[in-house]
Amino acid sequence: MNELTMSLDAKSKTPLYEQIYLYIKNEIRTAQLRSGDKLPSTRALCRYLEVSRSTVELAYEQLLSEGYVEAEPCRGFFVADVEGLYQLGRPAARYRGADTAKGTDCLYDFTPNGVDLNSFPYNAWRKLSKESLLDDRAELFRLGNPQGEYGLRSAICSYLHQARGVNCDPEQMIIGAGNDYLLMLLATMTGQDHTVAFENPTYRQAYRLFENLSFRIRTVDMDSRGMDVKELEASGADIAFVMPSHQYPLGIVMPIKRRLELLRWAGKQEGRYIIEDDYDSEFRYKGKPIPALQGYDSQEKVIYIGTFSKAIAPAIRMSYLVLPQPLLKLYQERSRFLNSTVSKVDQLILEKFIGNGYFERHLNKTRALYKSRHDTLLSCLKSSLCRTEAFRISGENAGVHLLLHVQNGMSEEELIRRAGRRGVRVYGLSEYDVEPRPKAPATILLGYANMSEEKIVEAVKILTEEWKV
Amino acid sequence: MNELTMSLDAKSKTPLYEQIYLYIKNEIRTAQLRSGDKLPSTRALCRYLEVSRSTVELAYEQLLSEGYVEAEPCRGFFVADVEGLYQLGRPAARYRGADTAKGTDCLYDFTPNGVDLNSFPYNAWRKLSKESLLDDRAELFRLGNPQGEYGLRSAICSYLHQARGVNCDPEQMIIGAGNDYLLMLLATMTGQDHTVAFENPTYRQAYRLFENLSFRIRTVDMDSRGMDVKELEASGADIAFVMPSHQYPLGIVMPIKRRLELLRWAGKQEGRYIIEDDYDSEFRYKGKPIPALQGYDSQEKVIYIGTFSKAIAPAIRMSYLVLPQPLLKLYQERSRFLNSTVSKVDQLILEKFIGNGYFERHLNKTRALYKSRHDTLLSCLKSSLCRTEAFRISGENAGVHLLLHVQNGMSEEELIRRAGRRGVRVYGLSEYDVEPRPKAPATILLGYANMSEEKIVEAVKILTEEWKV
Repeated sequence: MNELTMSLDAKSKTPLYEQIYLYIKNEIRTAQLRSGDKLPSTRALCRYLEVSRSTVELAYEQLLSEGYVEAEPCRGFFVADVEGLYQLGRPAARYRGADTAKGTDCLYDFTPNGVDLNSFPYNAWRKLSKESLLDDRAELFRLGNPQGEYGLRSAICSYLHQARGVNCDPEQMIIGAGNDYLLMLLATMTGQDHTVAFENPTYRQAYRLFENLSFRIRTVDMDSRGMDVKELEASGADIAFVMPSHQYPLGIVMPIKRRLELLRWAGKQEGRYIIEDDYDSEFRYKGKPIPALQGYDSQEKVIYIGTFSKAIAPAIRMSYLVLPQPLLKLYQERSRFLNSTVSKVDQLILEKFIGNGYFERHLNKTRALYKSRHDTLLSCLKSSLCRTEAFRISGENAGVHLLLHVQNGMSEEELIRRAGRRGVRVYGLSEYDVEPRPKAPATILLGYANMSEEKIVEAVKILTEEWKV
Repeated sequence: MNELTMSLDAKSKTPLYEQIYLYIKNEIRTAQLRSGDKLPSTRALCRYLEVSRSTVELAYEQLLSEGYVEAEPCRGFFVADVEGLYQLGRPAARYRGADTAKGTDCLYDFTPNGVDLNSFPYNAWRKLSKESLLDDRAELFRLGNPQGEYGLRSAICSYLHQARGVNCDPEQMIIGAGNDYLLMLLATMTGQDHTVAFENPTYRQAYRLFENLSFRIRTVDMDSRGMDVKELEASGADIAFVMPSHQYPLGIVMPIKRRLELLRWAGKQEGRYIIEDDYDSEFRYKGKPIPALQGYDSQEKVIYIGTFSKAIAPAIRMSYLVLPQPLLKLYQERSRFLNSTVSKVDQLILEKFIGNGYFERHLNKTRALYKSRHDTLLSCLKSSLCRTEAFRISGENAGVHLLLHVQNGMSEEELIRRAGRRGVRVYGLSEYDVEPRPKAPATILLGYANMSEEKIVEAVKILTEEWKV
């Protein structure tokens, strides 16, 4: 029997069972495992690899379902004769190639999309999900309110009111499975005959989505305060997509003055709207708290969108949209027939999570955590790279990433390459350009949400060695 | 202290906590409860109403958040002075009006969208969800594969292959939060510059969605075999939306010959596609099993869509799309950046539900259940109304509803009204017309999935008294 000594990467985006599956499949393809070879029992293998039994069972089920492995009653699993199978296998392999590319094996990853999952309150979540399933039974499995359950909506509303100064009542809120979906839903209300202005650089996901939904797109440059309102006016756009609390990727916190200018722009014409994406507003380190743009909106111009994937976990597929009255009316006329995309059970769990104070506790915990990582990164950079003119920091007042502007003669590509060869993954700003920005200096994004303080120290040391000239 | 004697309707679509909330709110509005009155403690009230504690707490939280009730530390809950509050309350009331209208207080509801939730394996679901949350922890809360987790996709693929003769591998499948979402996603691949042909009458939800996404829409009449392919050809459509296994609402099962004609239509031109909505294929009572249209498709023309909301529960927001190669390519180029809309936890639960055989057991159980209800309804109708020429049954070979064509001189409206005044809710076919069908006789839809056999017997007795002339 084979030992199947594979190295599993728990950090990888590729699930463990898939890593096991891929390893064995590859062993078979490359004839390391030959037709008729016996595989270890799931019990033996899960003990050996120290993963859960079901993880191994999953991997075996896949191999079975694809015919790489055969199960013989009471004897176990055996490698099948796979002559005919390559055809079937190939697209799969190609496909997963794209997938595993995402999973990284670098030692330090400054991804700006990181979230610290070690601090996720698994036990609370488990407890609440257990409770939720004990509740009203059948009720829970009926089709729910298309806007989302009233209880969850009011819980989120009061949170947004307290934490973000958002004025909304539950009637204006729609809960959906992620921002992408909610923006699609928004498109069903407005129709595509609109011109949407994006900051440049911006959050590519939203940009691509609107482009893809065949809206007309404009890009508007930013100054140090955010989107340039004169340019916006000139662009002929009727919808502006902005991230005032912490622009992604530049990290600019839009000052009140600019927010009011934006609102004035919207007020000037019937049918103008501002989409405010408040994606990581939970995290702020410096300066006075600034309420959401929506909080200043007296003319029903702001469409507010937020998510729990930063504040809780990326896999919690729940976001929320707060609609101004005119769009709420459109929603009820044109889009209310569309069913909710979030299961009632999940909504109830989140409702309890917020209602019972877990969310607040979790936020405070992660805030403190990210704050100290933020501070560590900042002081490390200041005491090393930033002692020279060549390195300048920006966007450090909020969010979970900051920017490092580099003028040491190296290009973004080179900076990334040099860091990469020492196991440090960093991200170039140009990745986020939706239109090439002239005379842009090399700029690196450093996300710290998912980096321990000691890792930050080590990583910055490496970057200093590689980038100092 | 007040007893708050309210009658809760566990069957209503309005959640229990919301019913309690509405009752108390109304008591306050109508001054049955006056400012300063003490409300029962949540513990007392939940015992009194025999609902879970959290249900009452939810109701109180809402009353608190809307200011109808005030909490006094250590003293309990008191009715607030609500003078200023009516403004706030009104939209809510209006809105919930629309909502509660859906929840019905009739005695017998022949809704064609019913699902028997008493037979839902709550304990198994609870157990699996508990297991799932114990699995790989952090892994589970990272962002998953945009197409859905590989394990679940392969589980569904093998089910579809065995049960429906669908040829797919997991690479072709996309899991999403409901059919509505998956059709929106499909639109991001194809773009809106297409003409979609729908059967008339049809599933309004899909029709409205495509209309709303500004596709060009055509309707094509049906004969006894389903969509008329000559008319389809003439319509100039390049996409046909059909439900071959059990057309909604007519209940026609499309014979193989017609399926092949449809495929030939699609094969005639580059870029023609068929969307096969297999929404309730799990239930079939008569005739040989006919594999899905997709199973006959040798030219990559069929886009297959299915859901678990009929087979498991409406609130399980999981559907799946099986893409032919050309569209899979488009998906990867244009839409793969969109995040999955289903949480990994839910996907893992469903994967285990299928993988561990619960799904099959559940299907067999509900199949048997619906079959006997189907048979009861059929025999009741045949031994009563259908003894005269005036009543004819159709669409009874599959699905969870059948049609009753009535020529007793009464209009659909009158039939519905007469049934309604005796507490029997029935549904008129014309509701489903997307274009008025000339010379259509009055036709009533009778769904039986959520009606016990004895209720069916009683209800048909009433219908006979009301409709017999």
